[in-house]
Amino acid sequence: MSGSVVIAGLGPGNEAMVTPEVRQALDAATDVVGYIPYVARVAERPGLTLHPSDNRVELDRSRHALEMAAAGRRVVVVSSGDPGVFAMASAVFEAVESGPAAWRALEIRVLPGITAMLAAAAAAGAPLGHDFCAINLSDNLKPWALIEKRLRLAAEADFAMAFYNPRSASRPEGFGRALAVLRAACGDARPVLFARNVTRPDQSLRIVPLTETTPEMADMRTVVIVGNAATRVIETPRGPILFTPRSA
Amino acid sequence: MSGSVVIAGLGPGNEAMVTPEVRQALDAATDVVGYIPYVARVAERPGLTLHPSDNRVELDRSRHALEMAAAGRRVVVVSSGDPGVFAMASAVFEAVESGPAAWRALEIRVLPGITAMLAAAAAAGAPLGHDFCAINLSDNLKPWALIEKRLRLAAEADFAMAFYNPRSASRPEGFGRALAVLRAACGDARPVLFARNVTRPDQSLRIVPLTETTPEMADMRTVVIVGNAATRVIETPRGPILFTPRSA
Repeated sequence: MSGSVVIAGLGPGNEAMVTPEVRQALDAATDVVGYIPYVARVAERPGLTLHPSDNRVELDRSRHALEMAAAGRRVVVVSSGDPGVFAMASAVFEAVESGPAAWRALEIRVLPGITAMLAAAAAAGAPLGHDFCAINLSDNLKPWALIEKRLRLAAEADFAMAFYNPRSASRPEGFGRALAVLRAACGDARPVLFARNVTRPDQSLRIVPLTETTPEMADMRTVVIVGNAATRVIETPRGPILFTPRSA
Repeated sequence: MSGSVVIAGLGPGNEAMVTPEVRQALDAATDVVGYIPYVARVAERPGLTLHPSDNRVELDRSRHALEMAAAGRRVVVVSSGDPGVFAMASAVFEAVESGPAAWRALEIRVLPGITAMLAAAAAAGAPLGHDFCAINLSDNLKPWALIEKRLRLAAEADFAMAFYNPRSASRPEGFGRALAVLRAACGDARPVLFARNVTRPDQSLRIVPLTETTPEMADMRTVVIVGNAATRVIETPRGPILFTPRSA
């Protein structure tokens, strides 16, 4: 049997956003590896072994997947959202790069999914409707100074911005510093979206002027979207619509 | 009957990437509007009226969709990729903002899809695996000077970059100028991905060092991804893998 690794995106949580090709890959898998809550989204069945693992062991998990594939298993590595956006695809390729030559001969495919910022944008309107950037605010793997530099330059470029991993229990101060950088760089009350548990039954969307944002509005289950200078809100009887026009 | 507008993303072309919720919305629609080649992807059936329209009439198309919804129709506006990324969602909300008050009371939902840059990234590896930006290189709706400014600042921030609409018959020079800006700003041979007709049977992927890129490598069916300073290629017997490590 010829082994393979498929790195598949499960989307933000709503099962109706899982693409058919991801569903087919899961149906054909012999092994599924991933962070515990993502593996929990995969139904058990005979012939399938689930390998849930803890957070922050992405390289170990990748090597495990590659080892199993080299032994002939059909392995699916599951990510929330899109595996290519702050998720497992880069970790698997880092493991391939530093691993045995045999791993380079394996069939490895990435199947995209709906990433959290685009699900959050859709739920709120179209705040990423023009030029934008995506920044991981975690400083686990890069220096905080680089994050601040990117925030300042993104504001100067007038990008709308989406932030992943804005705030965790182990890094409580970073997000407050990020908001301070943005308030200084943008100097206006542009709308900021806090989208928590997006597409799940307990989804919450909150739109706050940048001048009134506080760090406590975000946690690790929140995607934050900061508008550009033209982003605005349409008030409707059904609630606010947040959007960035195409000319911005 | 209560009318509605659903703005739905069909993904980049592969039907196995259309999400079940988008499929359900199409199955429930009375009317589908959109650019001709996207409407052509929707199967005809009794009770469904297709309204294909030409490119560059996004606001007219949006108003038509909203008028039909106000008259009680269940309208789906189709976009390629994700409707919230350089596509129809912002156009519909521009029309709502400038339209009659009754349109604000309509049910309007955005259903995300797999956007071209993420499908292209997945097909090539994981070049958008860390902080990145997305820029529409068309200057139909914004001045070219703003595009150049964003390119320079994105290079200074060391974002990976994805470009939509890099080059068209009516704007043949812009992409060459963009490449010149990037060569000057980046000053290295970082890899650039040209992904044409991504996920379609005639998909082509080409990875070229920035120093060797030429404008003719892109057209309107191409998504271009420029790596950041850490983006690199793993050579394998199955072809090159392009990825950006998580620490970049």
